[in-house]
Amino acid sequence: MDESRVNRVLDNLDKMGMGQVLVTDPMSIKWLCGYHTEPYERFLGLYLARDAEPVLFANRLFPSPGDAVASVVAFSDTDDPVALVAGVTRHGEPLGVDKELAARWLVPLMDAGAASDFRLGSPAVDRARSIKDDRELELMRQASATNDRAMEWLVSQVRDGVTEREIASGLLDCYRALGAEDFSFSPIVSFGANAADPHHELDDTVLRRSDVVLFDVGCRQGGYCSDMTRAFFWQEATEHQRAVYECVRAANEAAEALVAPGVLFSDIDRAARSVIEDAGWGEFFTHRLGHQIGLVDHEPGDVSSAHHEPVEPGMCFSIEPGIYLEGDVGVRIEDLVIVTEDGCEVINRYPHDLVVLE
Amino acid sequence: MDESRVNRVLDNLDKMGMGQVLVTDPMSIKWLCGYHTEPYERFLGLYLARDAEPVLFANRLFPSPGDAVASVVAFSDTDDPVALVAGVTRHGEPLGVDKELAARWLVPLMDAGAASDFRLGSPAVDRARSIKDDRELELMRQASATNDRAMEWLVSQVRDGVTEREIASGLLDCYRALGAEDFSFSPIVSFGANAADPHHELDDTVLRRSDVVLFDVGCRQGGYCSDMTRAFFWQEATEHQRAVYECVRAANEAAEALVAPGVLFSDIDRAARSVIEDAGWGEFFTHRLGHQIGLVDHEPGDVSSAHHEPVEPGMCFSIEPGIYLEGDVGVRIEDLVIVTEDGCEVINRYPHDLVVLE
Repeated sequence: MDESRVNRVLDNLDKMGMGQVLVTDPMSIKWLCGYHTEPYERFLGLYLARDAEPVLFANRLFPSPGDAVASVVAFSDTDDPVALVAGVTRHGEPLGVDKELAARWLVPLMDAGAASDFRLGSPAVDRARSIKDDRELELMRQASATNDRAMEWLVSQVRDGVTEREIASGLLDCYRALGAEDFSFSPIVSFGANAADPHHELDDTVLRRSDVVLFDVGCRQGGYCSDMTRAFFWQEATEHQRAVYECVRAANEAAEALVAPGVLFSDIDRAARSVIEDAGWGEFFTHRLGHQIGLVDHEPGDVSSAHHEPVEPGMCFSIEPGIYLEGDVGVRIEDLVIVTEDGCEVINRYPHDLVVLE
Repeated sequence: MDESRVNRVLDNLDKMGMGQVLVTDPMSIKWLCGYHTEPYERFLGLYLARDAEPVLFANRLFPSPGDAVASVVAFSDTDDPVALVAGVTRHGEPLGVDKELAARWLVPLMDAGAASDFRLGSPAVDRARSIKDDRELELMRQASATNDRAMEWLVSQVRDGVTEREIASGLLDCYRALGAEDFSFSPIVSFGANAADPHHELDDTVLRRSDVVLFDVGCRQGGYCSDMTRAFFWQEATEHQRAVYECVRAANEAAEALVAPGVLFSDIDRAARSVIEDAGWGEFFTHRLGHQIGLVDHEPGDVSSAHHEPVEPGMCFSIEPGIYLEGDVGVRIEDLVIVTEDGCEVINRYPHDLVVLE
């Protein structure tokens, strides 16, 4: 149990008017007590409350939590974990629940009267997780350094007649050779007009002259995630393609220049979006500017026009503006940044320059 | 929209005293209307109600639903999908929600008063999904036929000094060559005492003489899942190992012999469990006997002592007894079965015989 992290969560919870929380996000449980397992359809929960011992609820089929938590309630597939949780919660007080807690558990917890009221409690955990400590930041830098090198490898694989799937097929081995454990998400490799779909899935599209070559890739290393996007051109780039590219690059760099403690997430989004709107492509930047990242690829607290909180030192998030012109061209340029005391550190070093590959 | 499937869901819902349901499981949405996307942290929902048009709620970033559903409410990352859903539901009636609906959506829906009461509605969908039609059953058979052939390939890869990871590394290509799209779950390859952990994760364990070699693998083909486990021995099998194996085999076959319409899931579990208990290993069969399967690997309605409903023709589930003796030996033998009008069809044909590989 990491007492300091638990206390940060309980302090955040206090400010939200709650004294107890049921944490069920496996990564949050890992972050709090070092125990990690993926429960799939089974129940896994860590109950935290003021002036009480933390209690871990874990199916006996999971790996043993050992001494990660002093108090463990172990159960079998035929037991009812809801009744076990309701046996521990304070029924007269509100209970914070995890944003990911499935209705299959939440509805019976409500029916069992396990608390006076059920509220979203995970922001207390997510806020604490979003401020990384020095060790975590170093792991974020390492994962992104690996990602920079993987991007070099990807570029080296671009050749006439290659398919998206062929390029992607060696990437996991590349990451592992560089010390990473796994992908942090399924890699995106998009050629030509496929790049105009921000969530294009790998297929057998063959590379052709004047295609965009977009890589949106990331690995997990030391438990922490990287995530970067670069776009290149194959053999030639038209004036129109160059204009789109340079606009996205300017948007990326305008946002990165603005990041500093106290600046609102929404203002960072605005800085990038304004550049694209001013160039007349505003309606083709169809998503938020970025997302926080750490133990998982997408962490809460996005960089969007709807998020009006200030960024704080120790936060890490993506800056990833894009322009998507259907059937024509798509470009996105994405870096991860760490908020420092007086600005930000861009932890992806792979250059932004427009490159025509030959 | 598959009207007949929608009507089966609404009929089931009627019996549960509800007239409206919010389906959010992406596979259930696919099953109902043919549209499939994985929403990740974004919202995707299909609202069904008596005497009303189905309404699909989908983020604009998702692939277009086309004409899968006549009425689509599209929204952006900065919109509030909860308000959009609450604008369509009948606030004076109970609303069935999906068992997987995350608290991040359910708690705000409750706060918005989107219904008089929130109940688990997905059993209405899951029950309908659990009775497969002829086309679905044929796809289940094909996926399992592929899995039988993949098991032959796995066995061909067993050799002196090989590691678990090495054997697993070619499996996806093998499945694809056989016509499958993907794994249905991460393959389990366990050597020796690793097999005594039913959820062992692949590692670099090297095969040694007298090891158990356990494969628990499955693919998705034509959208439907296979899942089979076989255990072998490398070079020799001790009397103790043979006894464990034959006990598991007898448990598997006792359960498969019992499956027929009207038999309770719990009685099928009991048939296998009794065999293992009678041999003195009852406490080492640590999980339910099986799970239903279809569009996803684990579907609701498990084969366990806690599930007292009868099986029905068209259902498909696993029979997978196991004995796990920590640090010593682990064996599990798993088949998929389809309930027929007068018994069951075991759709895995790979033999159960004890085999010592050389």
